[in-house]
Amino acid sequence: MTPDQFNVRYEQLRRQVDRYLTTVIDAGSSGSLDDACRYVLTGGGKRLRAILVLLSCEAAGGRRARALPAAAAVEIMHNFTLVHDDIMDHARTRRGRATVHIRWDLNTALLAGDTLLAIAYAQILRTPTDDLCRILHLFTQGVIGVCEGQALDLEFERRNDITVKDYFTMVEQKTGILISVASELGARIGKGTPRDIRQLRTFGHHLGRAFQMQDDLLDVIGDERQFGKTIGGDILEGKRTYLLLTARERARGSDRVLLDTVIKRKSHPPARKETPSQRRELVSTVRQVYDNLGVIDRTRAEVVANTQRARRALRDLRPGIARDMLGWLADRLAHRIS
Amino acid sequence: MTPDQFNVRYEQLRRQVDRYLTTVIDAGSSGSLDDACRYVLTGGGKRLRAILVLLSCEAAGGRRARALPAAAAVEIMHNFTLVHDDIMDHARTRRGRATVHIRWDLNTALLAGDTLLAIAYAQILRTPTDDLCRILHLFTQGVIGVCEGQALDLEFERRNDITVKDYFTMVEQKTGILISVASELGARIGKGTPRDIRQLRTFGHHLGRAFQMQDDLLDVIGDERQFGKTIGGDILEGKRTYLLLTARERARGSDRVLLDTVIKRKSHPPARKETPSQRRELVSTVRQVYDNLGVIDRTRAEVVANTQRARRALRDLRPGIARDMLGWLADRLAHRIS
Repeated sequence: MTPDQFNVRYEQLRRQVDRYLTTVIDAGSSGSLDDACRYVLTGGGKRLRAILVLLSCEAAGGRRARALPAAAAVEIMHNFTLVHDDIMDHARTRRGRATVHIRWDLNTALLAGDTLLAIAYAQILRTPTDDLCRILHLFTQGVIGVCEGQALDLEFERRNDITVKDYFTMVEQKTGILISVASELGARIGKGTPRDIRQLRTFGHHLGRAFQMQDDLLDVIGDERQFGKTIGGDILEGKRTYLLLTARERARGSDRVLLDTVIKRKSHPPARKETPSQRRELVSTVRQVYDNLGVIDRTRAEVVANTQRARRALRDLRPGIARDMLGWLADRLAHRIS
Repeated sequence: MTPDQFNVRYEQLRRQVDRYLTTVIDAGSSGSLDDACRYVLTGGGKRLRAILVLLSCEAAGGRRARALPAAAAVEIMHNFTLVHDDIMDHARTRRGRATVHIRWDLNTALLAGDTLLAIAYAQILRTPTDDLCRILHLFTQGVIGVCEGQALDLEFERRNDITVKDYFTMVEQKTGILISVASELGARIGKGTPRDIRQLRTFGHHLGRAFQMQDDLLDVIGDERQFGKTIGGDILEGKRTYLLLTARERARGSDRVLLDTVIKRKSHPPARKETPSQRRELVSTVRQVYDNLGVIDRTRAEVVANTQRARRALRDLRPGIARDMLGWLADRLAHRIS
C-alpha cells in the first residue's frame, strides 16, 4: 500500500472508533455527568491506542470487529486518565477545547473520570472471548500502571534529582504500559499464538517509548499550530523530559546552572510575572543548549532506534495489511509533527 | 443463636475481611500512592458490604471462602468512592482520621481513589466462578450507579426544590445500589437458584433504604461520641436528608420559612461566622420542628418497615446460620446508634 492508502485506511479506522464511542453513553440520558462523558469521548484525537488494539487483533489472525469493544475500552480508559491528569496539572485546554474541570467544575471532572473508567470496564466485558479473565487482568494491570506512573510523575515534580533512568521508569508506566497493553489485548482477542502475543507486546513496548520521546522532542522542535500546545511549554514548566534530563546529565558550568533553574521551575514557578519575550528567550536559550549538547540529535536517534525495534518485533507475524499498517504506524509516529 | 453469638460471629467475619484487605497491596511496595491506599484500607469501618457478600454467598448455599475476593472488591470499591467523595465534600476527617487529601494532598487522593478502583477489579477477578462476565457486569453497574448517585447528590445541592421522590432516586443509586449489588454478588458466587438471587437482591434493596434513612435519623437523634460525626451536622450543612425534605413538604408558615433557610445553607453557607451556641440553637429548633411535624416518628417507622421488607425477602432462603445472621444484621442496622 502507498502512504496515501495507509492514511485513508487509518482514517477509516479512526472514524469507526469515533462512531462506536458515540454509542457508549445512552443517547437518552442527560445530566451533567453524561454530558461531560459524552464531551470527552467526542473530543477527537488520534485514537492511536484503539487502533493498535484493532490492528493487533487482525495481525494475530482475528477478525477486527471482535476487538472493537476492547479498542473502545482502551480509548475510554485513556480518556479517564486525561480528565484526571488535567485536574492535577491544572490544564485549561485539551485538544483545543476547555478541559472538563474548566467547562464544568472539579467535582464533575472527578466523577466523569470515575464513570469513564467504569464504562471502559463495561465495554471490555462485551468482548467475545473465552479468555475474559486474562483480558481483564491485562486491562487492570494497565489501569494500575497508569495510575502509578502518574503518581511517580507527580513525585518527580517535587524532586530535583531525577535521572534519565527514573524518567524511563516513569514513562514506561504512565504512557508505555497502555500502548503495550493495547497491542497485547488485540493479539489475545485475535487468538494469536503465544509467540504472536509476545511479539505484539514487544512491538507496543518499543512503540510506547518512541512515542513518548517524540512527544518530548516535539515540545522543542514542533510546529505550534500543528501540535496544539505552546512550543517550549515543557521547558517553561520545568517538566522532566528526556531532553532536559539528558542535557542535565551532560551539561557543565553555566549550562548546568541554567538547566538546574529550569528543573526548579516545576516546584518553584517564577515568582515575578515573566513577559512573553522573556519566556521566548528562555525557551530559545535552552533549545540552543540542547542542540550544543547533542541532545536533540540523541533524542531523534533514540526515537528512530525504538521505532526500528518495534518494527523488528513485527517481522515474524503473518504477512498482511494489518502487519504492514502497524509498521507504517510506527514510522508515522516517529515522524509526526503533531 | 443469641445476639451475643451473632456479634461474636460478625466480629470474626469483620476481622477476616480486615486481614484479607491488608494483603491486597504489595507489602514490599512503597511510595505515597501505596501508602495512601494502605492507609485507606486499614482504616477500619463496619465492613458491612463485604460481610453482606460473604453471608449472601453462604445463604445461597456456597462456601464463604469463594466470596472473599469479591467481598474485598466491594469494600475496596466503597472506599474508592469515600476517598473521592471526601475530596468533593471538603471533608477533613473520616472514621476519626485525617482524610487522604488532607493527610497527603488532592492529587494523591485523586490517584489513590483511581488505583483503589482498579485494585477492586483485580480482586473480583480472583473469584472462582464460571459466571465471571455476569459478576463483573453487576459490579460495574454498581460503580456506574454510585458515580451517578454522587453526581445527582451534587446537583441536588445546587437546587432548592428537591422532593422526597428525588431523594429516593438519589440514595437508591448512591448508597442503595452497592448494598444490593453486594447481596446479589454473594448469591451468584454461591451459585444460588434464580430465586435465591432475586430474593437476596430484594433483601439488599430494602436494607439499603433502611440503612440510609437510619443514617439520616442518627444525625438528629444520635450520640455524638458513638456516631463519630457532629450531631446536627446535616442540618447545619443544609444536607438534603429524608427528614429535611419530608418536613419541608409538611411544614407551613414560619416552620416552612425556617426549613427553607436550612435548605439554602448548602448553596449559600451563612456569610457571618456563627457562634457555637447559635449553631446549637439552630439544630435544636429544627429538631423541634421535625418532632412537631411527626417526621422523626415517620422516619423511624420507615426504617422499621424497610427492615421488615428486607427480612421478609429472606423467608424462602434455605434455613441456616447465614440466613439468620442476615436477618439479625438488618435488625442491628435498624437499631444501630452509630
